[in-house]
Amino acid sequence: MPHPPASRPAATPRLHATYRIRARPSEVETAARLLALEQSVELPAEVVRDPYVRDHVVATVESISPCGDELFDAVIGLSVETTGFDPAQTLNMLFGNSSLHTHVELIDVDFPLEFTQRFAGPRFGVAGLRERIGAVGRPLTCAALKPQGLSSEALAELCYTFAVAGIDVIKDDHGLADQRYAPFAERARACQRAVERARSAGSCSVYAPSLVGAPQRLAEQARLVRDEGIGMVLVAPALVGMPAFAELVAEHLQVPVLAHPAYAGAARVAPPLVLGKLFRLFGADAVIFPSYGGRFAYSRDLCRAIAAVSRAPWHHIRPAMPVPAGGMAVERVPELVEFYGNDAMLLIGASLLSAGDDLPVRARGFVEKVRSVAT
Amino acid sequence: MPHPPASRPAATPRLHATYRIRARPSEVETAARLLALEQSVELPAEVVRDPYVRDHVVATVESISPCGDELFDAVIGLSVETTGFDPAQTLNMLFGNSSLHTHVELIDVDFPLEFTQRFAGPRFGVAGLRERIGAVGRPLTCAALKPQGLSSEALAELCYTFAVAGIDVIKDDHGLADQRYAPFAERARACQRAVERARSAGSCSVYAPSLVGAPQRLAEQARLVRDEGIGMVLVAPALVGMPAFAELVAEHLQVPVLAHPAYAGAARVAPPLVLGKLFRLFGADAVIFPSYGGRFAYSRDLCRAIAAVSRAPWHHIRPAMPVPAGGMAVERVPELVEFYGNDAMLLIGASLLSAGDDLPVRARGFVEKVRSVAT
Repeated sequence: MPHPPASRPAATPRLHATYRIRARPSEVETAARLLALEQSVELPAEVVRDPYVRDHVVATVESISPCGDELFDAVIGLSVETTGFDPAQTLNMLFGNSSLHTHVELIDVDFPLEFTQRFAGPRFGVAGLRERIGAVGRPLTCAALKPQGLSSEALAELCYTFAVAGIDVIKDDHGLADQRYAPFAERARACQRAVERARSAGSCSVYAPSLVGAPQRLAEQARLVRDEGIGMVLVAPALVGMPAFAELVAEHLQVPVLAHPAYAGAARVAPPLVLGKLFRLFGADAVIFPSYGGRFAYSRDLCRAIAAVSRAPWHHIRPAMPVPAGGMAVERVPELVEFYGNDAMLLIGASLLSAGDDLPVRARGFVEKVRSVAT
Repeated sequence: MPHPPASRPAATPRLHATYRIRARPSEVETAARLLALEQSVELPAEVVRDPYVRDHVVATVESISPCGDELFDAVIGLSVETTGFDPAQTLNMLFGNSSLHTHVELIDVDFPLEFTQRFAGPRFGVAGLRERIGAVGRPLTCAALKPQGLSSEALAELCYTFAVAGIDVIKDDHGLADQRYAPFAERARACQRAVERARSAGSCSVYAPSLVGAPQRLAEQARLVRDEGIGMVLVAPALVGMPAFAELVAEHLQVPVLAHPAYAGAARVAPPLVLGKLFRLFGADAVIFPSYGGRFAYSRDLCRAIAAVSRAPWHHIRPAMPVPAGGMAVERVPELVEFYGNDAMLLIGASLLSAGDDLPVRARGFVEKVRSVAT
């Protein structure tokens, strides 16, 4: 099978995508070539007769290296032009048809400047988020309003308790949508009023309602956020769709965006790429992910990688703040701060709410512990 | 750990979601209970003090049955109210956080009428599609315009060739987006003109351009489809995001919708559920999927299940037409028609294009073979 010429014109900037391929050593070269064709022209190489397509569109196999028993990492060069610089089409080029191949995982992508310069990334990033929240030299704190099923009034009361305790960011549970028992507009207004009311007690808490829905609904929710002077929002990019997420951030929001990983795990795409890189590229200022040692099975190495990727220098793209979550307890704060450092936001949910009537004390204890152990 | 009371009020209609859980037999009950909590209140049961939440919001474990070595199917009852009847929030309730649990797969969902009555499903369905295309008593034929990188003019020429050959639906390759080498508007207009020009040769072909992008871009593309009188569209719901897909169909399109599975395989969600049920629920009239015996590893049983689910009776929701694809050859038409029956659209791509200069003959042969073997 003819291979794309090694001497292709230098004028084709490429995304370098790393795929983990399960194959026998004798078959991995063919598998990588087929992957490159599937992810670009979706035709056998010999059917591609047009010279432009052959030189500038057919993906190239850049390298293949073993990384385990019958496992190989293949780096494929995808022409930047093929993405049309659109989020949906970019996912398509990265893992459209190959998502249907169970022997392939998408591990990482190296985006060239020609690509990233078309995306703004987080509007605030780590520094902007700290500035908005007025939190310097320590990790940020975050708590969740839950469970769903409570009335807007009950959620707002919980919000007030967290605000008085000094929690930096009080977010809706990501399960709160526009349900009958606490409709979005009513709930968001009530919770925003709760954080405003707490200001007289010295609180600087920011409330982040959960935006979820189809695009027009998201735009309406964003309008309410602006009209009510709400300071932050929670969005799950994989639920609303990454292209809709990117558009929401770029066109409809002016406040920091906290990204939630719901539905993003339903994937054979590596978590540091989805959570740390793609969510950030498309505009998340802070990214929630399941930390090691909680209810989810993410390892310390995986969590370290997610945090590192979300904060790594990347052209003009601001760093996003890692937000470890998913079964954290107040007692673990020192360990978590040592692991993630100051540039993190600790999100504690059930561990606070399980305090019952002692919630104000437990929440205040969380805030003080973070201040005391800042690195 | 307290379990939700078995005598819960009958007034809570529930979605019944089946999850495949990998667990030791002694631990599966706990795993199922934790899953029910994770997918509803995301809190330990003892923290849920509100009676309404306990009775109407906390998910219930309806049954657990073994289905393999350390594998169990657990049916969880999710309150319909929690979905807010929104596509994004529905995905959230079905597989939001649990997508992050690698020991869990989402296998199927049984939606009650209280839920489905809020969704329209396919606007045309199998019968409407046949009527629009004028194809009765036989499977439909479909071919793809590719590879990307060709000019709009070259793609339109290919479109004309397929139209004269009598292919029912001529779709853009799903890799065609809004790239510089064949911009969407220019390409869609040129290909639509090609099928119109072929009408004088007796052709009834319909052209289906690929719509891809963030929501506003999709709406613009849909406007052009309407303005140009284009008869069908191709959309990949997992790429644009299922909520954006649902809104696009409901608000911006008036023609049949052919759904493409790109990016939908990047999941631990069973293909018959995503492709056959969810895509259909959110409005796909026809659903492309990788058939057995092609470039993808889907088994005959899996393909049979996808086709069956997409056509099964389902309240008021019209059946969607299965579109097996992914490395089909003209020679396999008799076998494929025997397997899928008449209510299918056969999509053949590379096998036609590899004919080179013999393309008109090969395409015509495909059309005639389908007519001759109709069951």
